[in-house]
Amino acid sequence: MAVYTEVTDEELEAFVAEYDIGTVVSCKGIAEGVENTNYLMQTHDRQFILTLYEKRVARDDLPFFLGLMEHLADQGIPCPTPLHGRDGEALRELCGRPAALITFLEGLWPRRVQPIHCNGLGEALARLHIAGSSFGMERRNDLSVEAWRPLFAQSTDRADEVQDGLAGILGAELDHIQANWPDDLPVGVCHADLFPDNVFFLGDRLSGLIDFYFACNDFFAYDVGICINAWCFERDRSFNITKARRLLAAYRRVRPFSDAEIAALPVMARGSALRFLLTRLYDWLHPPAGALVMPKDPLEYLQILQFHQRVSGPGDYGLD
Amino acid sequence: MAVYTEVTDEELEAFVAEYDIGTVVSCKGIAEGVENTNYLMQTHDRQFILTLYEKRVARDDLPFFLGLMEHLADQGIPCPTPLHGRDGEALRELCGRPAALITFLEGLWPRRVQPIHCNGLGEALARLHIAGSSFGMERRNDLSVEAWRPLFAQSTDRADEVQDGLAGILGAELDHIQANWPDDLPVGVCHADLFPDNVFFLGDRLSGLIDFYFACNDFFAYDVGICINAWCFERDRSFNITKARRLLAAYRRVRPFSDAEIAALPVMARGSALRFLLTRLYDWLHPPAGALVMPKDPLEYLQILQFHQRVSGPGDYGLD
Repeated sequence: MAVYTEVTDEELEAFVAEYDIGTVVSCKGIAEGVENTNYLMQTHDRQFILTLYEKRVARDDLPFFLGLMEHLADQGIPCPTPLHGRDGEALRELCGRPAALITFLEGLWPRRVQPIHCNGLGEALARLHIAGSSFGMERRNDLSVEAWRPLFAQSTDRADEVQDGLAGILGAELDHIQANWPDDLPVGVCHADLFPDNVFFLGDRLSGLIDFYFACNDFFAYDVGICINAWCFERDRSFNITKARRLLAAYRRVRPFSDAEIAALPVMARGSALRFLLTRLYDWLHPPAGALVMPKDPLEYLQILQFHQRVSGPGDYGLD
Repeated sequence: MAVYTEVTDEELEAFVAEYDIGTVVSCKGIAEGVENTNYLMQTHDRQFILTLYEKRVARDDLPFFLGLMEHLADQGIPCPTPLHGRDGEALRELCGRPAALITFLEGLWPRRVQPIHCNGLGEALARLHIAGSSFGMERRNDLSVEAWRPLFAQSTDRADEVQDGLAGILGAELDHIQANWPDDLPVGVCHADLFPDNVFFLGDRLSGLIDFYFACNDFFAYDVGICINAWCFERDRSFNITKARRLLAAYRRVRPFSDAEIAALPVMARGSALRFLLTRLYDWLHPPAGALVMPKDPLEYLQILQFHQRVSGPGDYGLD
C-alpha cells in the first residue's frame, strides 16, 4: 500500500529502452500490494505493470515466479506475464532492485465478496492447480507447516500483548496441527495467497489472477484452505457456508478431491488460518521501520481459526 | 501516498451509472497525493481519475476548485476537468465523501528536475495567472501571511524538538516577514502548491498541471516564490540559479513582472519557505492517528528559508 521506490525519469527511460514498447506517457505508483513497488505504466497504446521487487521477495525465487506466470498463461490461466526485452530477458534491474514489466489485466478485485465470486474462484483455483502440474520448476513453501513453530517462537513472548492467552492458544494449535498434518495429499503448484485483492472480475466473470509471489509447491488442499479463509468469512467473522459450498463445488467440477483431501479439509483450513495468524502476529509485533503500511489485524485470523477448531467434519464446509 | 477510502463494487457501480461513460474495467488506488483518495479508473476506451475528497479539503471550497479547473481548461491551460453527470452535477457523494470524476492527463512528473523543466513551468504558471483573471469566483488563501502566526503558535512549544533554536528562528522570521510583506502587488488566482509532483511532462514538453486543491487568490509573485522553492533547490539544498533564471525568464515572457513584484521577490520566497516550513512542522509534530504517510521533513524548508535570508536582492534569483 505504498510506493517504496521512486523511479527517476532517466532510470525509467533507460529501463523501457530495453523493450519494444515505444514511449511512456504515464507512470503512476499503485497503492496496492504491500510487498513490492508497483507502477501502472502506459505507452501510447498499451499499459503494463512495472514491478520492483523489494527485499521481502528473494531474488533467487524470481525465475520461478516469472516462469510460472508465463507457464500458466500459456495454459490459458488469466494471469499477467512478464515482457521479454530485446535481449530476451524478463528480469532486469531498476534502481538497484530486480524489476520486471508485466502485462496489465483488466478487472476489479471484489471489495465485498459475493457468493457468485466464489464460483469463479473455485474454478480458477482448480484450473491453476492442473495447469501448474506441467510446470518444470519447483519452489518449497517456506511458510508451510515446518516453518510455523520457528515463526511462532519469534512472537511467543509478546503474543499476549495482542490478546491475553494468545500464546497458549497458538502453542496448543501448533501441537494439534503437527500431530494431524497429513503427509500424503496431492501436491503441486499453489498460489498460496489468493486473497480477494489478487483476483479480478469483470462483472461476475473472473478476469485475472495476480500476485504469484508466494506461489510454491504444497498440498492443493492447503491452497483451498487459504481460499476458504480468505473468501468465506464475513466482516463479523461468521462463516458463510454458501460461499464455501460454491467455492468447493466449482473447484471439484474441474479437479475432484480425493477422499484423503476431503478428510483433511478441516486441518488444512486450520493450518492456513494459523499461517496467516502467525505472519500477521509477527508483522504486528515487528513493524518495519518507516513502514507506510498498516499491519493487518492478527485477531481476524484467530476468530477464523476458532471456527475451524469447532467444526465437526468436512461436511461443515458445505461439501456434498 | 495512501488509499484512504476503499470504494466497494456496488458503490462504484452506482456512482459511475450517473455518467455516460460505460462500464468500468479497472480501478486502482494511486499511491500519490496525500490529501485525497485517488483512483485511476478505466472504461473500455477512456480513463479518469476518481477523487474522493478527504477531510483536509473543505467541502465548501470544492465548487471553487472544480470550477477553476473547468475555467482554466477552457482557457487552454492543460489541467484536468471534472465530468458532469447526466444530472449536470460534477460534484457528488461516494462513500460518504464528496467525490468527482476527473479527466486523465498524460505525462510524468519529473522525479529529478532539470533546468529545461523550469522553462515549461514558468510559462505555464504565467499562463495560469492570466487565465485565472477571468474566473468569476474567489477563494481567500487560508494559508497566507495572516495565518502563519496562529499556525506557528500550535508548534512553538515543541519546535525545538525538531532542531535546537528553531522556535526562535521562526519567531524572528515571522516578525521580519510581517514587517516587510507588501500589500499592493498584483493579485489573482494562484495554484499555491505547484510542486514537481503536480506538473506533468511528456519529454521536455509540459503536458499538465494537476491538484488545484490549494488554489486561492493571492499575490502572483507569492506563487512564483512557491515555485522557486519547489523547483530550484537541489537535494543538498543548494540553490540552482540556472533553474531560477529559466523559470523567471519564461514566466516574464508571458506575464511581465511589475517593479514592485521584482522588489518583493526575496520576501515572497521567504514567505513561501516559511509557509511550507510551518505546515510541515505542524504535521511533523501532530501526525494524524493511523497516518499512512511519512511526514515531510520541515528542515528542508528551513535550509531554503536560510538561503533567502542571505540574498542581497532580486538579482540573486537570476533576474536580468
